[in-house]
Amino acid sequence: MNKTAQAPPVFRKTADTFAAGAKTLPQQYFVSEKIFEEEQTKIFAQHWVLVGHQSQIAKGGDYFSAQVAGESLITVRDQRSTIRGFYNVCRHRGTRLCEDNGGQVRAIQCPYHAWTYALDGRLIGAPHMDEVPGFDKADYSLHAVNLALWEGFIFVSLAEKSASTKRGGYISLEEWFAPLTGKFAHWNLPTLRSAKRIQYDVRANWKLIFENYSECYHCPGVHPALSKLTPYDSAENDLSEGPFLGGFMRITKGKSLSMSGNACALPVGDLRAEDHTRVFYYSIFPNMLLSLHPDYVMVHQIWPESPERTRILCDWFFHPEAAAVSDPSYNPEDAIEFWDMTNRQDWHVCELSQQGIASRAYEPGPYSPRESIPAAWDREYLRSLKD
Amino acid sequence: MNKTAQAPPVFRKTADTFAAGAKTLPQQYFVSEKIFEEEQTKIFAQHWVLVGHQSQIAKGGDYFSAQVAGESLITVRDQRSTIRGFYNVCRHRGTRLCEDNGGQVRAIQCPYHAWTYALDGRLIGAPHMDEVPGFDKADYSLHAVNLALWEGFIFVSLAEKSASTKRGGYISLEEWFAPLTGKFAHWNLPTLRSAKRIQYDVRANWKLIFENYSECYHCPGVHPALSKLTPYDSAENDLSEGPFLGGFMRITKGKSLSMSGNACALPVGDLRAEDHTRVFYYSIFPNMLLSLHPDYVMVHQIWPESPERTRILCDWFFHPEAAAVSDPSYNPEDAIEFWDMTNRQDWHVCELSQQGIASRAYEPGPYSPRESIPAAWDREYLRSLKD
Amino acid sequence: MNKTAQAPPVFRKTADTFAAGAKTLPQQYFVSEKIFEEEQTKIFAQHWVLVGHQSQIAKGGDYFSAQVAGESLITVRDQRSTIRGFYNVCRHRGTRLCEDNGGQVRAIQCPYHAWTYALDGRLIGAPHMDEVPGFDKADYSLHAVNLALWEGFIFVSLAEKSASTKRGGYISLEEWFAPLTGKFAHWNLPTLRSAKRIQYDVRANWKLIFENYSECYHCPGVHPALSKLTPYDSAENDLSEGPFLGGFMRITKGKSLSMSGNACALPVGDLRAEDHTRVFYYSIFPNMLLSLHPDYVMVHQIWPESPERTRILCDWFFHPEAAAVSDPSYNPEDAIEFWDMTNRQDWHVCELSQQGIASRAYEPGPYSPRESIPAAWDREYLRSLKD
Repeated sequence: MNKTAQAPPVFRKTADTFAAGAKTLPQQYFVSEKIFEEEQTKIFAQHWVLVGHQSQIAKGGDYFSAQVAGESLITVRDQRSTIRGFYNVCRHRGTRLCEDNGGQVRAIQCPYHAWTYALDGRLIGAPHMDEVPGFDKADYSLHAVNLALWEGFIFVSLAEKSASTKRGGYISLEEWFAPLTGKFAHWNLPTLRSAKRIQYDVRANWKLIFENYSECYHCPGVHPALSKLTPYDSAENDLSEGPFLGGFMRITKGKSLSMSGNACALPVGDLRAEDHTRVFYYSIFPNMLLSLHPDYVMVHQIWPESPERTRILCDWFFHPEAAAVSDPSYNPEDAIEFWDMTNRQDWHVCELSQQGIASRAYEPGPYSPRESIPAAWDREYLRSLKD
Repeated sequence: MNKTAQAPPVFRKTADTFAAGAKTLPQQYFVSEKIFEEEQTKIFAQHWVLVGHQSQIAKGGDYFSAQVAGESLITVRDQRSTIRGFYNVCRHRGTRLCEDNGGQVRAIQCPYHAWTYALDGRLIGAPHMDEVPGFDKADYSLHAVNLALWEGFIFVSLAEKSASTKRGGYISLEEWFAPLTGKFAHWNLPTLRSAKRIQYDVRANWKLIFENYSECYHCPGVHPALSKLTPYDSAENDLSEGPFLGGFMRITKGKSLSMSGNACALPVGDLRAEDHTRVFYYSIFPNMLLSLHPDYVMVHQIWPESPERTRILCDWFFHPEAAAVSDPSYNPEDAIEFWDMTNRQDWHVCELSQQGIASRAYEPGPYSPRESIPAAWDREYLRSLKD
Repeated sequence: MNKTAQAPPVFRKTADTFAAGAKTLPQQYFVSEKIFEEEQTKIFAQHWVLVGHQSQIAKGGDYFSAQVAGESLITVRDQRSTIRGFYNVCRHRGTRLCEDNGGQVRAIQCPYHAWTYALDGRLIGAPHMDEVPGFDKADYSLHAVNLALWEGFIFVSLAEKSASTKRGGYISLEEWFAPLTGKFAHWNLPTLRSAKRIQYDVRANWKLIFENYSECYHCPGVHPALSKLTPYDSAENDLSEGPFLGGFMRITKGKSLSMSGNACALPVGDLRAEDHTRVFYYSIFPNMLLSLHPDYVMVHQIWPESPERTRILCDWFFHPEAAAVSDPSYNPEDAIEFWDMTNRQDWHVCELSQQGIASRAYEPGPYSPRESIPAAWDREYLRSLKD
């Protein structure tokens, strides 16, 4: 449902009716190793994917590592404050350079033979290699990956930059996010800071996570606590086709989604009045879930590990000053506990779906009118495989 | 060896001589993923396979789940007392419906979006689906599997019912078991109740379990306790070719097979005099071992998990009134402990065989005259792959 | 570098320069299942491989089992004191015969049906088999493997003995080791005894272990304790091409490589004066690392388990009388602890290399002049695959 004034209720009904004709994806999309490999190649190694937020590496020399399509990447802020991304592979004998998830360094030194790289990737030390005729350090910089920021979030793309401008090939992050320009300005996303990260290992295909996130038809049975705060049928979608999907649900009881029902921090930004009683849910293809509450922003990174396994990172972001004395309401655990409980309820039904879909008795079933967004997500997914 | 009076010792010798020319199966039958898949398709997804006993689901609403050829099935007694089998898969988005091994329900409700099915499989609840043009609940009943009873035991078949009557296609359970009609009437199998179930995870091919069960040539070295009660060379076989194989061994010391050597319950039925000193061992192709003692019946379900792995369920059945005060002799642990020990001795040598057979040095070896039944089982197995 | 007087420094420089042009192996050699299978077939099932030392089975009836190219082998000293090797597989139904890693037996009896073999492999007991027409025990001896000794070490070869004399086919152990005749006579290797064996499970390709062993370019960063005792640039190689590679490094501080820096046992043999301040490192293709210290000899067996996994057995050998009262200096832990620490440092960087090499960003990198032996080892390895 388009939430602008121009979109009449009748349009919404039409969209829903259309979605209701759709069915769930065939079995092979959830169990096939071949399709999994195709997804890794065509989607996760081609699209811009979320790996973190600039607040994680605030100072020069701060770095974190990320796993993308089977690759370990180093994301580092260099001495001139530019954020850069490199393959975590020494140019000498291929050794993994950074073992930790993150930290602070002055240079990147290989733990094996001590080859040393500056934070911009240049090889600056390689013992005895000057004895090799023709060896030039300039030929052995770290391999870089495309990296760019959107609203303070760090995205990388393993795609080759080339003359091609077709979708599925390389396009700039700015171009990719153009349809969302200004949409989230009120939430001050670039300034927020994560108070907590939880990693989940879910035994379900990654697409089931998106399909689950994109509807609240399951909420009455699966999420009793959530359903008390936001009625399952209060969803209004303003992005209903394409790589960005979602809308808001109304908070009809309490001030936010938390165990207590209270707001648990300063508002994250300069919200419009109506947004204080709304929670916005958007899926950003292919690996980001963006959940905007009045007092915090929850972000999921979705990482396929195998057809039947998905690693999920979930961050809870708050106002940068929320942790300071200036915010007596600050109680992040109230939100974290609420969503950790709700997340686990979701992962559980996703795992049950994975089990049943693997049956020879499974056949695509009919989406209900309350599942128009999962149906739209499936369509976008199928388009992305064709590119 | 045919145990009827007409079968002279000389015939027995002939049969043994024939079997003695046989050799064990070639290596690939024990290690090949391809043959394992073929077995699953041609045998476990085609034949009638044992999944339980009617006493497990005595009342309407009682159910248990079973794993057959990679499928989870729901076996439920409906409100009219009919036992039915369904694929454990919701018709909406494919979700696994029952997570537990068993229990009591009034209806089958999906844990994801609350679609609800009657115990006969009809879809009776599907929120919001009446808004979908053309949607008819009658089109979305649970997928049923063939299910029938033999002597109180529940068998299912994943085969498609079709015009074909050839072996390997669908035949009725009644037709399949016709050769055994009346054979076990004295043991009152439909009325018995299981006192204990133990699950074993054995790192050996499932065929090694059958070959092991079908001879007592190994008993002197492997089963010292068993060999004291029943001499290893006392076997007389009355079914020596085809899908049903076996016969009896004499109990020459004590009253039954138990730790104490005593009977540990009322006789299971109205046994003939000579059967009080006999234990009958039959293998029912492809997944049942039926061991009839004077005072209890032991039943193994054999479930291949991979070429090198087999899950085994073992039940000990007793007279329905054995547990009541009316049976002062009732001491099921005496039998359970005896066979649990003996089972584990068998699984161990099966696992050693699996290890050795995987060697490049393995070649089929000669069966001894005491291994005519394993040889016959191998022949039946090979025929079943050809169907 | 050739250490004989005839080899001038200029030749050494030439050799190094040549090696410096070499690059590390392409990615597939470290991750491909197909190449792993090829290695098992062409190298580990064809070449002579180290499985132990004669001192492990000092008396008739002593045996140990070994795993070679997926095979379990029995290595036993028979009653006439001959050391023999057999596949660990019964000729009856293929059962694994010996479950333990080693022990003492009078005969080899199958745990399943009690077929019994003499220590020279002859079948001497097979119950009931005399009833089988035409059965002859002489046809069912244990399958033997080629086995021979070099300097007291036991080697086996799964190769078929045949008319072929080409390399990669069967050649005698004596012929194989001819280039090393007399080279290690001073260390009295046949008489030594192992004081300790440690098994390591390393998540790295087996070739990374050899490449790591063959250079000390990594020592300053990886092995601070080792580098204090032997300068990383003190290596002089006398075998620089072919299946046997290595040379010595100088011990410039302390008496040996140990935690204390002291010698921790009697000298292992009648060493030349200069060898009291040298540690010799040799790799013996395809699975032996031989490290000769003045007071002990360390031997690694390298066993590939998968492209990404290697099992390593490490033994510390001492003078046969070191453990006796006659050697007050005997303190084997001083050496064991030192090398256990150093081994683990090496396995760690090998595991990091495995991780990085699996990246799509990996490409063969340039060996330094200090890595001429790893480059030579790679060349020998590639030749062995071509045979």
